[in-house]
Amino acid sequence: DLDMNMVTKGEYEHFMLKEIFEQPNTIANTIFSHLSDNDDRIYFEGLEELKKQLSKARRIIIVACGTSWHSGLIGEYLIEELARVPVEVEYASEFRYRNPIVREDDIVLAISQSGETADTLAALRYSKEQGATTFAVCNVYGSSMARECDFTAYTYAGVEIGVASTKAFTAQVAVLTMLAIAMGVENNILDDNRAVALITELRHIPELVEKTLQTDKAIEKIAKEFLDVNSFLYLGRGINFPIALEGALKLKEISYIHAEGYPAAEMKHGPIAMIDESLPTLIVGTNEAFYEKIVSNAQEVKARKGTIVAVVNEGDTELAAMADYVLTVPKVDELLQPILVAIPLHLFSYHIAVMKGCNVDQPRNLAKSVTVE
Amino acid sequence: DLDMNMVTKGEYEHFMLKEIFEQPNTIANTIFSHLSDNDDRIYFEGLEELKKQLSKARRIIIVACGTSWHSGLIGEYLIEELARVPVEVEYASEFRYRNPIVREDDIVLAISQSGETADTLAALRYSKEQGATTFAVCNVYGSSMARECDFTAYTYAGVEIGVASTKAFTAQVAVLTMLAIAMGVENNILDDNRAVALITELRHIPELVEKTLQTDKAIEKIAKEFLDVNSFLYLGRGINFPIALEGALKLKEISYIHAEGYPAAEMKHGPIAMIDESLPTLIVGTNEAFYEKIVSNAQEVKARKGTIVAVVNEGDTELAAMADYVLTVPKVDELLQPILVAIPLHLFSYHIAVMKGCNVDQPRNLAKSVTVE
Repeated sequence: DLDMNMVTKGEYEHFMLKEIFEQPNTIANTIFSHLSDNDDRIYFEGLEELKKQLSKARRIIIVACGTSWHSGLIGEYLIEELARVPVEVEYASEFRYRNPIVREDDIVLAISQSGETADTLAALRYSKEQGATTFAVCNVYGSSMARECDFTAYTYAGVEIGVASTKAFTAQVAVLTMLAIAMGVENNILDDNRAVALITELRHIPELVEKTLQTDKAIEKIAKEFLDVNSFLYLGRGINFPIALEGALKLKEISYIHAEGYPAAEMKHGPIAMIDESLPTLIVGTNEAFYEKIVSNAQEVKARKGTIVAVVNEGDTELAAMADYVLTVPKVDELLQPILVAIPLHLFSYHIAVMKGCNVDQPRNLAKSVTVE
Repeated sequence: DLDMNMVTKGEYEHFMLKEIFEQPNTIANTIFSHLSDNDDRIYFEGLEELKKQLSKARRIIIVACGTSWHSGLIGEYLIEELARVPVEVEYASEFRYRNPIVREDDIVLAISQSGETADTLAALRYSKEQGATTFAVCNVYGSSMARECDFTAYTYAGVEIGVASTKAFTAQVAVLTMLAIAMGVENNILDDNRAVALITELRHIPELVEKTLQTDKAIEKIAKEFLDVNSFLYLGRGINFPIALEGALKLKEISYIHAEGYPAAEMKHGPIAMIDESLPTLIVGTNEAFYEKIVSNAQEVKARKGTIVAVVNEGDTELAAMADYVLTVPKVDELLQPILVAIPLHLFSYHIAVMKGCNVDQPRNLAKSVTVE
């Protein structure tokens, strides 16, 4: 048992910053706890049994709240892409209070750092009553969800003190990535070469996270330019759309700036009307597929005199040249990008909030784990 | 064929206002075009054939963009509740550019006012290639979607000139409501009494829309209080969550105020941090189910000194007493509320935009139908 009082900020000014910088370790712990040393096999407690359920699963329903809901959206993308099982992601609070369709051949996957989030727990219990197979991804050993679910895959992020989740989020994404790969192999959708290539790249993610963290000072300098804005638009496509949502939520939570995430192509169906000199746009532009569409979105923002902060891959020239400010991440397979892109987005929010004098570890009005309904 | 040049603003200052006030007619046209006079049977072109597809449908995938995507979310709620068929709603732009799972036993339902929205059309064509049954809900006779889909249910909203959709949206919701009822009856989920009760109430919706429109002056007066705000939060639960999204999108589009919709219970997972004197919250509080949860959300906003605009049913006392400003709609079955709640939300945005001097019929940067990708 971890004693919360034993956890200190160490050399860091805030728990949030410490937790962001712990990620090379927390992500490595999470990945290597679910990976065999000698070969590239992924395992979870009960995976063999779960595989049997998976092969007859009609669909997977992911229930979660807040930041964990964003992990869920990334999980949907990964599972549908790698294992070809239909996934539906639900806000736990919306799911539990309507009369949701849950069947015995559904797998309900609950994601929660604490394993105690009230709405998610209620959604899970309802699903269990309907006869569905239940699966939890959580960070706290022996939590309610871990105890009550048929299967649990732990994230090994360690105790998270900062109310705004950072390292727990990236650990969730790592677990979901591994789960999707394992399912894809099991379902004979993912061929061995591609699986091994993904796992090999995953093994290197912790050192790439370390490398990304070295851009912290550059991020702080850019953050300084945005202390007086009222609003921010975050755009992303595909697997990086949920990361845009997550970056925007973090800015809301700790700096109280109204940031909103949108799928980039939806911009022209409304949000583009808001863009002018006073509304900056952050664009996640690391995608390889349809990169030119992202460039075109950036052109539309520039044509309306909007300021652009772009997250790009190392070596990017086109989008980097158009952006007013550039955050850089190492280039990896598109499916593994969310973990790396989360780093500059979380740091960007952190620095803005600190420079604005906000209490980043305990934002106003927020609780660490929402155990009320 | 309707000649666009023949359409005038008549006595109204803007097309948008005219189109909002046309809704008693456009909704009546839409409802009664799909309802037999002598009994309460719902029909669409090809409904008998569609019913055969429905009985074997594994799931329904709704693809749409912008305001039509909000209709789709309401459709999901209605179809799952009344017909118990799993529904997945997708942004057409996200759907088409990934490698989506579409099977021969899926029904893909595309929603678009123009029937020409590029991303939605591409999503539809992809689904057709995969062998899915395709179904369009659109407003333009002989449009590409109507021509290419296996089935089409028309909305009879007439020509819509205002870029920000109003009457086309409520007509889409009316069609989806009727489709859900027809499916529920066909699937033996919805008993005859409940179906007849819903249809009877639906027949009265046009006159209740008329009654709601009479609150216009009161809405204008309230709108005047919000000309200087930078941001707005819109909250709703259940079937009224998508209406919160729609109200917020409309405010963005025509007044350029940054409004964001959220499921009310998600507020405590982040957005509540932003709430203070300067950030007002609009709460849709017409739901009968879990009304006390909405009251509790309102209390949380008041505790943070936030200003509340509440949309309530006639006769509401509790939420109305807590709110700073109240918009009222006639009380109807919860499943039919979105059409009525749309009226004050659209008018609220309209008046704010007009008083701010914005071009409401042609907001900056937006096109009426997005036929580019």
